[in-house]
Amino acid sequence: MTECVAQIVERTLQKRPMVHSITNNVTVNDCANIILAAGGSAIMAQDEREVAEITSRSDALSLNMGALRAQEAMLLSAHAAKRRKRPVILDPVAAGASRLRGEMCARLLEAGLVSVVRGNASEVWALMTGAQHTLGVEVNALDQVTEQNLSESARRVSLFSRETGAVVLLSGALDIVSDGKCTAVLRGGSEMMRRITGAGCMLTSLTAAYCGANPENLFEAAVAASGVMKTCGELAYRRVCEEMEGTASFRTRLIDAVSMLTGSDLAAKLRVQIL
Amino acid sequence: MTECVAQIVERTLQKRPMVHSITNNVTVNDCANIILAAGGSAIMAQDEREVAEITSRSDALSLNMGALRAQEAMLLSAHAAKRRKRPVILDPVAAGASRLRGEMCARLLEAGLVSVVRGNASEVWALMTGAQHTLGVEVNALDQVTEQNLSESARRVSLFSRETGAVVLLSGALDIVSDGKCTAVLRGGSEMMRRITGAGCMLTSLTAAYCGANPENLFEAAVAASGVMKTCGELAYRRVCEEMEGTASFRTRLIDAVSMLTGSDLAAKLRVQIL
Amino acid sequence: MTECVAQIVERTLQKRPMVHSITNNVTVNDCANIILAAGGSAIMAQDEREVAEITSRSDALSLNMGALRAQEAMLLSAHAAKRRKRPVILDPVAAGASRLRGEMCARLLEAGLVSVVRGNASEVWALMTGAQHTLGVEVNALDQVTEQNLSESARRVSLFSRETGAVVLLSGALDIVSDGKCTAVLRGGSEMMRRITGAGCMLTSLTAAYCGANPENLFEAAVAASGVMKTCGELAYRRVCEEMEGTASFRTRLIDAVSMLTGSDLAAKLRVQIL
Repeated sequence: MTECVAQIVERTLQKRPMVHSITNNVTVNDCANIILAAGGSAIMAQDEREVAEITSRSDALSLNMGALRAQEAMLLSAHAAKRRKRPVILDPVAAGASRLRGEMCARLLEAGLVSVVRGNASEVWALMTGAQHTLGVEVNALDQVTEQNLSESARRVSLFSRETGAVVLLSGALDIVSDGKCTAVLRGGSEMMRRITGAGCMLTSLTAAYCGANPENLFEAAVAASGVMKTCGELAYRRVCEEMEGTASFRTRLIDAVSMLTGSDLAAKLRVQIL
Repeated sequence: MTECVAQIVERTLQKRPMVHSITNNVTVNDCANIILAAGGSAIMAQDEREVAEITSRSDALSLNMGALRAQEAMLLSAHAAKRRKRPVILDPVAAGASRLRGEMCARLLEAGLVSVVRGNASEVWALMTGAQHTLGVEVNALDQVTEQNLSESARRVSLFSRETGAVVLLSGALDIVSDGKCTAVLRGGSEMMRRITGAGCMLTSLTAAYCGANPENLFEAAVAASGVMKTCGELAYRRVCEEMEGTASFRTRLIDAVSMLTGSDLAAKLRVQIL
Repeated sequence: MTECVAQIVERTLQKRPMVHSITNNVTVNDCANIILAAGGSAIMAQDEREVAEITSRSDALSLNMGALRAQEAMLLSAHAAKRRKRPVILDPVAAGASRLRGEMCARLLEAGLVSVVRGNASEVWALMTGAQHTLGVEVNALDQVTEQNLSESARRVSLFSRETGAVVLLSGALDIVSDGKCTAVLRGGSEMMRRITGAGCMLTSLTAAYCGANPENLFEAAVAASGVMKTCGELAYRRVCEEMEGTASFRTRLIDAVSMLTGSDLAAKLRVQIL
């Protein structure tokens, strides 16, 4: 797995996949910059009159529920991606905090338009049960994946993957990635990730870049994204401590680390457990 | 006051208030990040179909006139906040530069929907007189609060607070905070604040975070926000000079400083004059 | 030319031109911050109800095709700018990747509403031929200006300038600036520019700031913007290498460099070839 994940990263740096993102205004700049840092190319259009055209020329499509007003554009783009067999990555931001967002996610999933789901535990559980779990964009403490509930959580993620036909990347202190057959757990990262906005959105964008360059290996691409984010979170945190900096520098140093990471760096640091 | 303000900051770090912001696209990422740096949690939704639901689950609502197209969403959210007795913080960005913005602010204030107003002198004077004072988002030199016109300016701020029933935080080289009975003046900060976009918006967001965690002490929360911004502006400026950096690093180091500040740090540095 | 360009930069720091930008959400914060770094003042309104009013009070108008939904606002503002004889700077982002964007640019150009066009080679060639050249927001390798095709490229840029009556700034590894009579080439900059989002948008914003403060010298203002971006790109790249940082720090240090640059710094480093 380590070798394969290193290749995912290298292939992305070589192929420069174009990622079309329909995403929220809060973190859109970070999303574009992390795609570029990983070697991709970013376009963020959401006008209904051009999105299908743009998706058709892209290698992956990233849909973030924070861009609620672009619902129609999301559907047009998702259908265009399906026709071209391009991976569609769904970020169900705050799916449990608003009925509207949950419903939109369900609509995309039921139509078989989603290749990979990347969300936190509250968001993923909300999609599974249809219930509202979160108070906002952050994970609810009760929902969190811990070492204690890990095997049960992994079982649920795997089940959700089989139900939807999508690879699922549930991220948090522990990340779980499953394609319904194989399930991986990744540890590490940095607590400081929660003190910046956009860590989740950036992980989704990174997943889209890796999937765009590796459309035949979506499970491995999702594992790579998780592994890169955890590794770079650790590198950024170490640097921020050395320099006596705070959360805004952490964000900068996180993207910096992604831009400097090679496949072999990642292979040397990656810790993946296959369940 | 110093002791109380330190507690405001500490309580915010502990309670993690959720702040719902309806704000402009220019500085929305900085606003979210400074709320997180202060210990809060940020959600920035502005779709009319979900804003009332989201405000109802939040601890404070921050309304920024830069989000003009979200006028309807602002009204829905402000009414939801009022029903739940949650503080509403109004940032009248460029209220004096466009009739539309001035009218929207007046509408919110007249309906008694605003708990705290945070603006620069041109914006606050424009709200008081209905006249157009500024050429844009920055303060007009003629409007500025100086040591010479301080007592007259403080009197006007106090009057505006009594007229509107809102705490008023007028920020600039000198900040004035008034609840109509008590008026505080804060000095310090950094001139570099004016060379970055979003310093005002970030102060509004910080005010919303402190108000969200301290809804019984809105005046003190506004003083805390002013004091934190001035203190962190000084810390950031010192660091930027040491490192021979410019304005973009100043922005990063400003948010860094907020994320590292404790209540006792603030208490040690705060200079508040009660008029 | 060197002396003149240094004066353009100094005059901008003194005059503090207000730039009204109608731009995309991805890089809007960087655009505002680089305008402020250059000494200007930034307002980013795009509501049709207020844009003409805001443009009328501004020194320059910057239109970025990434803000597609603001088409009507762009036309209102462009007409307001023309009435007041204020320079209008057009950034045809991805004009070759979407019919809609190309058509909107053509409409503005044909109506004689554009004073300066700032785009990459794919975008400029697409505007000239009406054909679709790019796959996205980045330049197509085949379109790129090189030392080999430089004189032919310069001839085409000059021709496009004469056809449209606008100064044209085509940026890339080599920048070409032409007003149809005089054509300048600028070399240098940093390869890292392509690994961040917004380098092109920021150059457009910088051009708008310099044009706003120097409306009688649009050609020289465009040369200044090109020269500042290349010089600051080099300074930022050197610093990032020294500090062992990545692309996100490069972005910060680029804006830092603009905020610290004086006219005489620029004069000392500038390399302009007049063809």
